[in-house]
Amino acid sequence: MKIAIIGLGKMGFQIVEKLVAGGIEVVAYDQSNLTIDAAAAKGAIGASSREDVVAKFSGEPAVIWLMIPAQFVESEISAWELLLPKGSTLIDGGNSDYRESQKRAEQLIPKNINFVDVGTSGGILGAANGFSLMVGGSNEGYENIKPVLELLSKPSGSYNYFGPGGTGHFVKMVHNAIEYGVMESLAEGYHLLKEGPYKELNLAKVAEVWQHGSIIESSLNGLAQQALAENPNLDGVEGVVSESGETRWTLESAKELNIEMPVTQAAFDVRIQSQNGKVSYATKLLAVLRNKFGGHVENPK
Amino acid sequence: MKIAIIGLGKMGFQIVEKLVAGGIEVVAYDQSNLTIDAAAAKGAIGASSREDVVAKFSGEPAVIWLMIPAQFVESEISAWELLLPKGSTLIDGGNSDYRESQKRAEQLIPKNINFVDVGTSGGILGAANGFSLMVGGSNEGYENIKPVLELLSKPSGSYNYFGPGGTGHFVKMVHNAIEYGVMESLAEGYHLLKEGPYKELNLAKVAEVWQHGSIIESSLNGLAQQALAENPNLDGVEGVVSESGETRWTLESAKELNIEMPVTQAAFDVRIQSQNGKVSYATKLLAVLRNKFGGHVENPK
Repeated sequence: MKIAIIGLGKMGFQIVEKLVAGGIEVVAYDQSNLTIDAAAAKGAIGASSREDVVAKFSGEPAVIWLMIPAQFVESEISAWELLLPKGSTLIDGGNSDYRESQKRAEQLIPKNINFVDVGTSGGILGAANGFSLMVGGSNEGYENIKPVLELLSKPSGSYNYFGPGGTGHFVKMVHNAIEYGVMESLAEGYHLLKEGPYKELNLAKVAEVWQHGSIIESSLNGLAQQALAENPNLDGVEGVVSESGETRWTLESAKELNIEMPVTQAAFDVRIQSQNGKVSYATKLLAVLRNKFGGHVENPK
Repeated sequence: MKIAIIGLGKMGFQIVEKLVAGGIEVVAYDQSNLTIDAAAAKGAIGASSREDVVAKFSGEPAVIWLMIPAQFVESEISAWELLLPKGSTLIDGGNSDYRESQKRAEQLIPKNINFVDVGTSGGILGAANGFSLMVGGSNEGYENIKPVLELLSKPSGSYNYFGPGGTGHFVKMVHNAIEYGVMESLAEGYHLLKEGPYKELNLAKVAEVWQHGSIIESSLNGLAQQALAENPNLDGVEGVVSESGETRWTLESAKELNIEMPVTQAAFDVRIQSQNGKVSYATKLLAVLRNKFGGHVENPK
């Protein structure tokens, strides 16, 4: 099968590489010609414009996967809407607000474009280990891209279809809210271990024991183990932690529905406060963990 | 080697079974003769009294592992203190307050008894999968019981020594505090999925996708997956959630040290409020998760 990946940032580029390696024909397009050339060097078919992307499908319905920051999705979809042949599939694989994805799915139905929203977890390690993919939107679109989902989830990831437009991004949004809470729970615990009564505690060794057979064994604790082995005092880390929207949206949705999420709220608040200078060993660990799985910059300044 | 297990409850009995199966000579003692007989039927050496336990070691230094509720540890240790030969090792494998374990370790040094505090995680699944064991106290005592720790952690658990008396229970206390936060993070997320805009969402399938390749892949999410597959609406679950002390102590310690733990506090508060009738899908999921790993009763009334 053939698919175009639009947006060759950290995640987009890795997706191109993985799909090419798996034998899928990949058309690659980005704002930067240099990045397109880099993708072509990995075996993708470089495209020079959106029109050129469509041309690479020779008049057949196209399959377009957007992997771009949420703030550019609206204008990008408007542009593709005018170009795509009927029956095409348009996938938003980024972190859009599910309420926007709901609207976009409905808006594209009369145009006969299959909108699919895919929440993608696994971060920069996902390419090697297999992504966890949460899919919503057009059922036909989902069926069209199954070989791609199958390949991206290999060897140990997974994917599934959860419902109408927006569902994929809704499930991913909640995933990220849980992630904030879990990260903060770990960060608070390691903070107490670090500054508690036993000054000689080896935190990386604690993480290692917890990572084998304990109730809190987890992907994130595994990353904490690595981080604490590399830099036990988290020297040089500022501890200012960004938030990327999903948890803010989660808290908005919860409020509308009258659902209390006190732990999620507290985890969110800690990040906002870190941006206002309230940093600690805990927020330093958050920053390092974000860097570990997301490749986010530790010290944004 | 030979070790006596004192207290043949859920955890103690499983430890006896695992040690016997691994070729260790186990003396078993409990308040209940019936349970001692059951342990003897599994291959342990039944003892009829504390004095009889000591006699089974033929005058040699004994190795005694207490696996009893925290509130009985003080009087139990006082009783053993009078009976044990010099050089004996006395292990508290339960969930004692680390500040008590600190005192007990110091108190037993002049008596020439090696006090070892072991935090044990893995719950009722730990016997099969291998426990995660956090050890503090006498170094000599730790060396004495290494074969036991090695066996209890098999096949995929782990153990390590972290420092002087109380360290094992301190690390375990913090583990449990993290556990509260992680459980509540998951519970809040699934609550929003359940009562959010997509009523047809299959929560067990969401959990399954998250359990393969996502950033929130974890032991606890795996248990959530099982629970949600078995009983998606959590029918019949009251949602009253107990707390067993460690997180309360964690918050006390944090306060003394001026360390903020807002997520841990919020997770703790949710449990207390559930006991006062404030229950939800989230607290129901907490109750079911506790039952899954700890064998705790879901509806305590």
